[in-house]
Amino acid sequence: MRTTISDITEIITPHLAEVESLFHDELHSDLPSINELVEHVSKFRGKMLRPMLVLLCGRAVGTIGCDHITLATVVEMVHMATLVHDDVLDEARMRRRGATINHLKGNEAAVMLGDYLISHSYHLCSSLQSQFAARVISRTTNQVCEGELLQLHNRDNLDVDEETYTTIVSRKTASLIAASCFLGAMASGADDATAKRLEKFGLSLGIAFQIQDDILDLVGQESEVGKTLGIDILKRKLTLPIIHFLKNAPPEHQALCRSLLAQDEEQSGERIRNLIAPSSSIQYAHGRAARLVERAKQSLQELPDTDAKAALLTMADFVVARSR
Amino acid sequence: MRTTISDITEIITPHLAEVESLFHDELHSDLPSINELVEHVSKFRGKMLRPMLVLLCGRAVGTIGCDHITLATVVEMVHMATLVHDDVLDEARMRRRGATINHLKGNEAAVMLGDYLISHSYHLCSSLQSQFAARVISRTTNQVCEGELLQLHNRDNLDVDEETYTTIVSRKTASLIAASCFLGAMASGADDATAKRLEKFGLSLGIAFQIQDDILDLVGQESEVGKTLGIDILKRKLTLPIIHFLKNAPPEHQALCRSLLAQDEEQSGERIRNLIAPSSSIQYAHGRAARLVERAKQSLQELPDTDAKAALLTMADFVVARSR
Repeated sequence: MRTTISDITEIITPHLAEVESLFHDELHSDLPSINELVEHVSKFRGKMLRPMLVLLCGRAVGTIGCDHITLATVVEMVHMATLVHDDVLDEARMRRRGATINHLKGNEAAVMLGDYLISHSYHLCSSLQSQFAARVISRTTNQVCEGELLQLHNRDNLDVDEETYTTIVSRKTASLIAASCFLGAMASGADDATAKRLEKFGLSLGIAFQIQDDILDLVGQESEVGKTLGIDILKRKLTLPIIHFLKNAPPEHQALCRSLLAQDEEQSGERIRNLIAPSSSIQYAHGRAARLVERAKQSLQELPDTDAKAALLTMADFVVARSR
Repeated sequence: MRTTISDITEIITPHLAEVESLFHDELHSDLPSINELVEHVSKFRGKMLRPMLVLLCGRAVGTIGCDHITLATVVEMVHMATLVHDDVLDEARMRRRGATINHLKGNEAAVMLGDYLISHSYHLCSSLQSQFAARVISRTTNQVCEGELLQLHNRDNLDVDEETYTTIVSRKTASLIAASCFLGAMASGADDATAKRLEKFGLSLGIAFQIQDDILDLVGQESEVGKTLGIDILKRKLTLPIIHFLKNAPPEHQALCRSLLAQDEEQSGERIRNLIAPSSSIQYAHGRAARLVERAKQSLQELPDTDAKAALLTMADFVVARSR
């Protein structure tokens, strides 16, 4: 019998409900018009992956307390802020996509709503007894921003190598996932070595997660993934399959892909997807993600066998098996 | 003999140099490309008003220590993040202004650089011993975001009243200035009542400061103010002189102003400026700012007479006297 994501989350369902509730309470304002604008944020609701990791890592090491709920809410809020800010596009790209990409009331509202989320995430974090989590969270958001800035810096660089890609992804995506695992364990009183192992678990898992996202952006079905695809190409983000393709595909395919990327036209996205989807670059990316998931699972070896550990192992597999 | 701003800052010059230095150290990244992008931030250097207030309020109450330097750097970083994010424009406005308004590498870089600043400001704040400042700073940034969101919410509302304007300005601008004064005093071990009085000083001063900015956006000389003017009109921010004008100018002037605001054309800005600059609405705004400055100065009455108190009083006068 195959375990599903809802089986995993069952053991933490009541806690996830507390996270949802704290999330809304924290964002509530005394100004009705603010609450109206903040409602737009609900369009960005994620999969609650990061809160789940805080809670499951906490449970894998000890028991869940109030701090876990706070921390789980903090990491989800940080994550949503990055989603909202990722939605901001430059003028040229904005014009090409029309209103479809920015579901909000324009760039300026997206910036302010993202800022509101990030501010409240730190505010919530500062309600904890110790500065420890605030220090970890802010160090992590420093890294998230560095990843995003490094990605922007390399936007028009078609020769980005896999090492740079790994640096970008480690900071932009994996750092927050790693911090979720680390803080979840620390809040349960884990010793440093155990917390560090769970952090490593999150780091490997986070990179694998981003690679799977990259793959879905190229080969996924929009109806299934539930978001507009080809965004990476539109935003000129060179993802792992594209980077591999530009170095390893037959020379004429490489040349075609380069010229399509340079054109930066609306139709190029579809043509690039059609070019890369059947190539071995997708398999290559799959392979790398699978190896990272194996490495992540190995980091859990020394943990006692609990339902939480089993859930973390299943989640790790799910990261590369998911089609949305 | 008239005191100048450089006379005021003389007593805190060495501390301001420490703030500058901590500012750069905190933003330094191990990735050279990040440092390259962060250099763009220097284009947004402010007047250091907020760090000065942290330091002077600290000195007015006691002595300056390491925490003051940290706090002064934190508030300046938060302020710069808001400047960078204010630079993000929506597509229509962007197109109309061309590249002039966004000095950076586009909206996306402005968003990420602002996020980098805000993240580092919290990171720096979390280096303090106690959570107290982090709690105050994050509560303040919540308010700053609320002010910005309330302003956006009212963007196309030509009937914004003065009360809403005051709420917007209190949160968007004055809250951080008030927090600078409050934290400066608290870090010197001020009792609650004294710290609260300095917070009130900052709040009145902050509103007056924003009103003066509003006035300069309408009547200032670009060469003197040192930034593009008419931005408020471009961004459809109804400032105090405009709000007063739309309610109190001769009916035909009100009607013309409304139709110019509704047109939202590049040339309207200049025409609106020419319409309001000679009106009594500018005097009205001046009067309100002057009364706020008086109220701010009264909040300092019970402080002992020190060079720092004298500097704060001079700064208060300077806020409404400045032409840039």
